[in-house]
Amino acid sequence: MTMNSDTLPNLQETVPVHAMAIDKVGIRGVKYPIKVLQKDGQIQHSIANVSVYVDCNEESKGINMSRLPIIMNENIDTPYSMGSMKEILEVLRDKLGSTNSYLKVAFPYFVTKIAPVSKIPSVFEVPVEFVGKLKDGKFTFDMTVKVMGTSCCPCSKMMAATGTLPDGRPVGRGAHNQRSIGTVTLRINPDHSDTIWIEELVTLIDNNYSAPIYNVLKRPDEKYVTEQMYGEPDGNNHSGAKFSEDVVRDIYMDLKPYKENGLVLACAVISDHEESIHQHNCTSVIADDEFAY
Amino acid sequence: MTMNSDTLPNLQETVPVHAMAIDKVGIRGVKYPIKVLQKDGQIQHSIANVSVYVDCNEESKGINMSRLPIIMNENIDTPYSMGSMKEILEVLRDKLGSTNSYLKVAFPYFVTKIAPVSKIPSVFEVPVEFVGKLKDGKFTFDMTVKVMGTSCCPCSKMMAATGTLPDGRPVGRGAHNQRSIGTVTLRINPDHSDTIWIEELVTLIDNNYSAPIYNVLKRPDEKYVTEQMYGEPDGNNHSGAKFSEDVVRDIYMDLKPYKENGLVLACAVISDHEESIHQHNCTSVIADDEFAY
Amino acid sequence: MTMNSDTLPNLQETVPVHAMAIDKVGIRGVKYPIKVLQKDGQIQHSIANVSVYVDCNEESKGINMSRLPIIMNENIDTPYSMGSMKEILEVLRDKLGSTNSYLKVAFPYFVTKIAPVSKIPSVFEVPVEFVGKLKDGKFTFDMTVKVMGTSCCPCSKMMAATGTLPDGRPVGRGAHNQRSIGTVTLRINPDHSDTIWIEELVTLIDNNYSAPIYNVLKRPDEKYVTEQMYGEPDGNNHSGAKFSEDVVRDIYMDLKPYKENGLVLACAVISDHEESIHQHNCTSVIADDEFAY
Amino acid sequence: MTMNSDTLPNLQETVPVHAMAIDKVGIRGVKYPIKVLQKDGQIQHSIANVSVYVDCNEESKGINMSRLPIIMNENIDTPYSMGSMKEILEVLRDKLGSTNSYLKVAFPYFVTKIAPVSKIPSVFEVPVEFVGKLKDGKFTFDMTVKVMGTSCCPCSKMMAATGTLPDGRPVGRGAHNQRSIGTVTLRINPDHSDTIWIEELVTLIDNNYSAPIYNVLKRPDEKYVTEQMYGEPDGNNHSGAKFSEDVVRDIYMDLKPYKENGLVLACAVISDHEESIHQHNCTSVIADDEFAY
Repeated sequence: MTMNSDTLPNLQETVPVHAMAIDKVGIRGVKYPIKVLQKDGQIQHSIANVSVYVDCNEESKGINMSRLPIIMNENIDTPYSMGSMKEILEVLRDKLGSTNSYLKVAFPYFVTKIAPVSKIPSVFEVPVEFVGKLKDGKFTFDMTVKVMGTSCCPCSKMMAATGTLPDGRPVGRGAHNQRSIGTVTLRINPDHSDTIWIEELVTLIDNNYSAPIYNVLKRPDEKYVTEQMYGEPDGNNHSGAKFSEDVVRDIYMDLKPYKENGLVLACAVISDHEESIHQHNCTSVIADDEFAY
Repeated sequence: MTMNSDTLPNLQETVPVHAMAIDKVGIRGVKYPIKVLQKDGQIQHSIANVSVYVDCNEESKGINMSRLPIIMNENIDTPYSMGSMKEILEVLRDKLGSTNSYLKVAFPYFVTKIAPVSKIPSVFEVPVEFVGKLKDGKFTFDMTVKVMGTSCCPCSKMMAATGTLPDGRPVGRGAHNQRSIGTVTLRINPDHSDTIWIEELVTLIDNNYSAPIYNVLKRPDEKYVTEQMYGEPDGNNHSGAKFSEDVVRDIYMDLKPYKENGLVLACAVISDHEESIHQHNCTSVIADDEFAY
Repeated sequence: MTMNSDTLPNLQETVPVHAMAIDKVGIRGVKYPIKVLQKDGQIQHSIANVSVYVDCNEESKGINMSRLPIIMNENIDTPYSMGSMKEILEVLRDKLGSTNSYLKVAFPYFVTKIAPVSKIPSVFEVPVEFVGKLKDGKFTFDMTVKVMGTSCCPCSKMMAATGTLPDGRPVGRGAHNQRSIGTVTLRINPDHSDTIWIEELVTLIDNNYSAPIYNVLKRPDEKYVTEQMYGEPDGNNHSGAKFSEDVVRDIYMDLKPYKENGLVLACAVISDHEESIHQHNCTSVIADDEFAY
Repeated sequence: MTMNSDTLPNLQETVPVHAMAIDKVGIRGVKYPIKVLQKDGQIQHSIANVSVYVDCNEESKGINMSRLPIIMNENIDTPYSMGSMKEILEVLRDKLGSTNSYLKVAFPYFVTKIAPVSKIPSVFEVPVEFVGKLKDGKFTFDMTVKVMGTSCCPCSKMMAATGTLPDGRPVGRGAHNQRSIGTVTLRINPDHSDTIWIEELVTLIDNNYSAPIYNVLKRPDEKYVTEQMYGEPDGNNHSGAKFSEDVVRDIYMDLKPYKENGLVLACAVISDHEESIHQHNCTSVIADDEFAY
């Protein structure tokens, strides 16, 4: 007897013991090589942690699970974007005979940063997440970007200040500062003519920390960022000593134009400061209702 | 000059640059020793990963962050439960002068399991999460319990079957099976006279896997669970070969009495199967609207 | 005053308080995009977690740390291999003015596997680690490959057996099986004319599990691997029901030819079985003295 | 037929296909509640991640694996220490009929720290690892303690300095600082009359960072640690602005008395700085030959 799909029983198509629909059935916790479109039009290679689901109706014991990794394999060469995510979600829904589909790809993305004085370039990792959903025919797309920046505590700076320079800027015995992670999630309007790139969000978040982080700094650069983080925020409250509360408010303000022009439908902003003087992180969250948790 | 809190500037009480309320400000990513009340009335020692937040109003640059770890330290000897979480949330809100407060404690909890044949006892780890929120005066409490169980694939079993025993039960050349994690989240009604214990949820989840997992099994026990997972589910669809789709439906069914009597206001059920024949997990999710994501 | 490296103080070149050499000083915990040479001559893009160190002599307070990420950035387009690792280690040693250098790149590598019956291809992730050291002029290179396979317990199978097929093969009520990770570390002889590819090690490890793992299996494939893992090992003790003890012995045996011809100088073999009936993994280790720990 | 251990086959006692001894066979990746003796004589409850192994001789297909978790369960109430670890290792070796045994328990340990000015106490987590080995009759015991401290960069401080106070201490526009992890591993002489407590190592490591970390700091405390980390190291090179190179040298120096009196047979010191201006950590390692890697 030859083994083929026609002669083997198809258990998942039988009726379930309890007639109950299941919101999500699928695969998760697996890595795939992916491609992502850069702002400059080039393709970036990355490796994604993937979750992909469809719903299961109340008349089926299960879904045809193997079709999910087959579809993921068929898209190894597809550059991931809002547009291609929607197309994959439609294929998932149609090939699985389901009503809804869900796809998350979480991957490291690299941008090049230029050191502020020496101008030496270096790569910088940005964890990114694309989440697409097709629910009752409606497509939603959320992009999350995590950017590491430096935060310098203005309270610590003020308490350790000892005097001022001739131009009025304070000097003193330091201020605690630390790695911080700025996380921005945007629900993007798929019907809008504009788009927002990962690269833009990196710049927007960098502007709102005490100083951006670079992976190559020569001594003149190190002097520059040390003084930048210790400094006074500018008129837009960009750079200089800031609380986590300041950072989330300021990032949220900088996102407003994208919301006002209709490109961004909702957003959430988190700033997580890995306090250099504590074991706990100090964290602030502003989230629109769509992302409240 | 002596340093004390009266003479040092209090920067977080000044007005922010952008008058905007912040949903959550607090600390996270830190461990505390905690105590938890067991079903048998004994106290269990554990170690929790803690997140604790309050909201920040639009008139304050920041919150008085140090009060959060002070309150956590003051509760080192408090047994954590729905009731004590509510009291801590009220203290947090009042001491911080905020409107809302949020507390999450995630900790390993141990139950003792008895091997099915040899009756040898052994400890078994259950990751548990308590999330309490006090929002606009309303208290909500969610409990999440993760129980590892064995799932055996009924499709694999059927395809590899070679015949039947005299009593009609199939025999064959095996079936793939694997570790699986059953996750149940319950929103519990704080005004209900009943309660539900971690121990009860462990039993409820254990019943719905192909076989429960034990950390000590002698050979007669191993024979027992091998045959139990390969077997046929009983009238309640408990134990035996099951898909992840079966497991979530069956756990959800077993939770219904708790919802019908009003103790459980909403729930979410996840079954995550670490497939022995794939790198991906096969996962099913049924979630009431309160936990949809 | 313009800021440049000439006018800024160079603290790390001053003498340390305690004149003591330091074995390793460098950077770790950072990701870089990398390229890796495949067996078929193609270049594979990956993303590496990188650690890079040099020693610090007793006369210097510190090393010139920024040169390490500069060198890593300069090698973004270098395909990583034993040969290129040696060249980078020499550059590190020379540019830092040190005696020794150390470089570890740990990255996911993808191979394509073909389903056994349907012949459908799918990608499969293999975590790989290259560790190169240049110590007192001597270069060593270690490659570690981790391959996920299925292990099926022969004791569980034997106890649940109920009879035999006409050809003598046992049938019964299943056997517990689970994901397992086979880890092989090889110290490779840099002066040998032969080489060993990641792809070869994947096949070698796959052969020694109860069945290989594939990320796309149709039903005829699933029947095939179910029966393969339950089956009896062949003359080389390849595939079929096996203990973790069997797996490490058999992998070690299959590595012997590489040691006997001088390509592999030493090796370590680990098989870690994520028991489907326990919370603990069952693990076996055979390690030559160079890797004992 | 009743199922008992006498009538079921004992496959692991049969001869292996390849007559080859296995260095380590056992269980790992599982949590157990444990007790640990504090310096003050009290018992601390913790939760350990456990690995436990014995060797397998060349005549046995496998070991009697279930005895390992049985022995771990029997020691739930044993306070873990060098002495009790030795006793457990002897039980493991004897009950498994092996030559060698190995036990690792990795657990969070809590100490209480007192804020420097306000004197408010707070708990502080210290990851600890005990590794005991019984090899060819010889017992070795290694203790690893990881303490989080603040490091402040002296190069950054010097470059951003703007002048000096009347007493000569520099002031300026800050200095980058960050969380750092000091890891000390000690091989302890089991035949020595002295002992070294976790609490002592926490103090020794705290002394060698720019400032210790506390989980509750009021504003006067925050001013204190800000100035402490920015300050000048004392005569023992304790506290103040320091490189990771300084930290490992200074910790190693402070460990010398323990080595000279014979209590500590060997040690390794790592300082891992989570740079606030980079994505990579800056790390230094001094390791005696026993711990070189």
